[in-house]
Amino acid sequence: MASVRTPDPNPGWLSELALEETRSRVPILYVEAVPVRLDPNGVVEKVGVLLRTSSATGEIIRTLVSGRVYHGESVRSALMRNLEKDLGPMAFPALPPSPTPFTVAEYLPMPGVSALHDPRQHAVALVYVVPVTGDCAPRQDALELTWLTPREAQSADLRGELEGGRGLLLTQAMAHVGANLA
Amino acid sequence: MASVRTPDPNPGWLSELALEETRSRVPILYVEAVPVRLDPNGVVEKVGVLLRTSSATGEIIRTLVSGRVYHGESVRSALMRNLEKDLGPMAFPALPPSPTPFTVAEYLPMPGVSALHDPRQHAVALVYVVPVTGDCAPRQDALELTWLTPREAQSADLRGELEGGRGLLLTQAMAHVGANLA
Amino acid sequence: MASVRTPDPNPGWLSELALEETRSRVPILYVEAVPVRLDPNGVVEKVGVLLRTSSATGEIIRTLVSGRVYHGESVRSALMRNLEKDLGPMAFPALPPSPTPFTVAEYLPMPGVSALHDPRQHAVALVYVVPVTGDCAPRQDALELTWLTPREAQSADLRGELEGGRGLLLTQAMAHVGANLA
Amino acid sequence: MASVRTPDPNPGWLSELALEETRSRVPILYVEAVPVRLDPNGVVEKVGVLLRTSSATGEIIRTLVSGRVYHGESVRSALMRNLEKDLGPMAFPALPPSPTPFTVAEYLPMPGVSALHDPRQHAVALVYVVPVTGDCAPRQDALELTWLTPREAQSADLRGELEGGRGLLLTQAMAHVGANLA
Repeated sequence: MASVRTPDPNPGWLSELALEETRSRVPILYVEAVPVRLDPNGVVEKVGVLLRTSSATGEIIRTLVSGRVYHGESVRSALMRNLEKDLGPMAFPALPPSPTPFTVAEYLPMPGVSALHDPRQHAVALVYVVPVTGDCAPRQDALELTWLTPREAQSADLRGELEGGRGLLLTQAMAHVGANLA
Repeated sequence: MASVRTPDPNPGWLSELALEETRSRVPILYVEAVPVRLDPNGVVEKVGVLLRTSSATGEIIRTLVSGRVYHGESVRSALMRNLEKDLGPMAFPALPPSPTPFTVAEYLPMPGVSALHDPRQHAVALVYVVPVTGDCAPRQDALELTWLTPREAQSADLRGELEGGRGLLLTQAMAHVGANLA
Repeated sequence: MASVRTPDPNPGWLSELALEETRSRVPILYVEAVPVRLDPNGVVEKVGVLLRTSSATGEIIRTLVSGRVYHGESVRSALMRNLEKDLGPMAFPALPPSPTPFTVAEYLPMPGVSALHDPRQHAVALVYVVPVTGDCAPRQDALELTWLTPREAQSADLRGELEGGRGLLLTQAMAHVGANLA
Repeated sequence: MASVRTPDPNPGWLSELALEETRSRVPILYVEAVPVRLDPNGVVEKVGVLLRTSSATGEIIRTLVSGRVYHGESVRSALMRNLEKDLGPMAFPALPPSPTPFTVAEYLPMPGVSALHDPRQHAVALVYVVPVTGDCAPRQDALELTWLTPREAQSADLRGELEGGRGLLLTQAMAHVGANLA
């Protein structure tokens, strides 16, 4: 009869109400990842871009691997959890040995104020380039993963399709890895 | 009679109650800075360490420039605001052109779990090395700024005095700038 | 009678013959710098591009601050020497505290093989973003320094005018500092 | 009669005489690597240190993966070639997607002038942390590869045994990956 409370299996998860309130109070910490395929010398051959339903607007949009860091969760664990959520369990992402992101992305809720925009919140994301060697099988709300060459990833059309201005992050990622952007 | 609401001059500020509740829900985003004096070639000559009253425990402790990023505030603005709060208005900090921190510091509320520890919260800090060229006059709760050589900054005694395990951040900062740590 | 040899005041300097021979044997180490003007928060407002006579071809071309690291010279000293050579003695460049470049640029002598090209040699350059606060007065073979907005620095026309493919380095520099490249 | 010259299969290789002359003229470009074993989240569990005969002094010393960048060779190819030379063909090193080293190491021929020292030459090395997943079988002059915990890699004894002051590079590598150095 006594109801023994089991530990919350998902302690970082918040109710919609609590999350909405929290979003009005502090910037929300995210991790994002640009999945890449490398040749044996570490040169980026392909860049992965997700096609999915926007959790903000419900539209079909292109985006990157992205998710919140939960309370009590390490940045590395959050990165791994979100890679698995968006690419499936067989992607075999190779997390970088350094915790330093290649850039910090700041999203503001007001459109037009900054290059990056998230209507739900002020979000700050640590962004990583993550090589994957396995098979990517997007799941949950991700419909498809498209592999593009670095040059294709830089096309103006594609940039415009990326949610919240994330075309900028793709450009920064390609610059960081030294891909030829000409 | 109508009370006209003036815009909140400090929109990121939260009541103690709201802050405490928020701290139980999400990791809180901080910026931290290691102030340095450079020679003309960019070599670090001195490292600044603060002596101040811990806002967590009330004890006198050594620490770095540190503070929360407010809702709606950019990371750069938060860094500048906290440098001015801790070093005074005449320090003339030279913020780096890149928004990428040299490391990401993760503080957990449970002691002993991680190298870095904050009893109040799960905090994630973007940490920067910031050259200052002016006069530093600590204010608010900061009692004193001590300038140390990179070698002095590495002494085991000093490391032990730094709040929350931040001796690790000093070591990482000195490694990042290529200071001789022998 | 005795001819007393005074120490070579310029020990890294090589005769044209010795330099040419050396260039056929090993990659030659360079430093390059992208000069920038920052606002107080560290945001890049302007990017400096040099107009000068190419030492490779004699044509008038656009380029970056660039020069060889001499034998026995530190990377920091080489960077400072070349900044002074190209921007004059009153530019007051702020060398970064970390010796890590934002990218490594590899120039090959054969055109079309790589994004970057130097007909004289195989050169490897450590490339830095360097804030300058003083007055720039190009000297020696540099004719003029033009200050551009990050957006202007990204125009396809300008990119095409940069010597040896260095438009790529400008793009990488702007990505590194988080400039909006849209 | 006509002696047809076949292309040099090893074009970057230089005779001892040519190499010695070149070393007196310009800094020589090297790549170095700190091999690491990672856990699935990218946390460094072990650091590899080589035991080998010093090519400078003939003594048995500890060192890192290290070698010259040949004329015409890319930095990535030089890194891969030297990893294979020192760790064997089955080490499966994962070269990082970015060409930016975590530090630049400068070796001067005069002892005591700088933290890093190479009696043969002025060398400048681009230093990388490289995860390896396969079996390491040192060959050529490398006698053994020892895997150490990050803490063991920081012991004062080990640091003293590393050739040319490379204990500093180990400390910098561990700081870069966020290993607990306490």
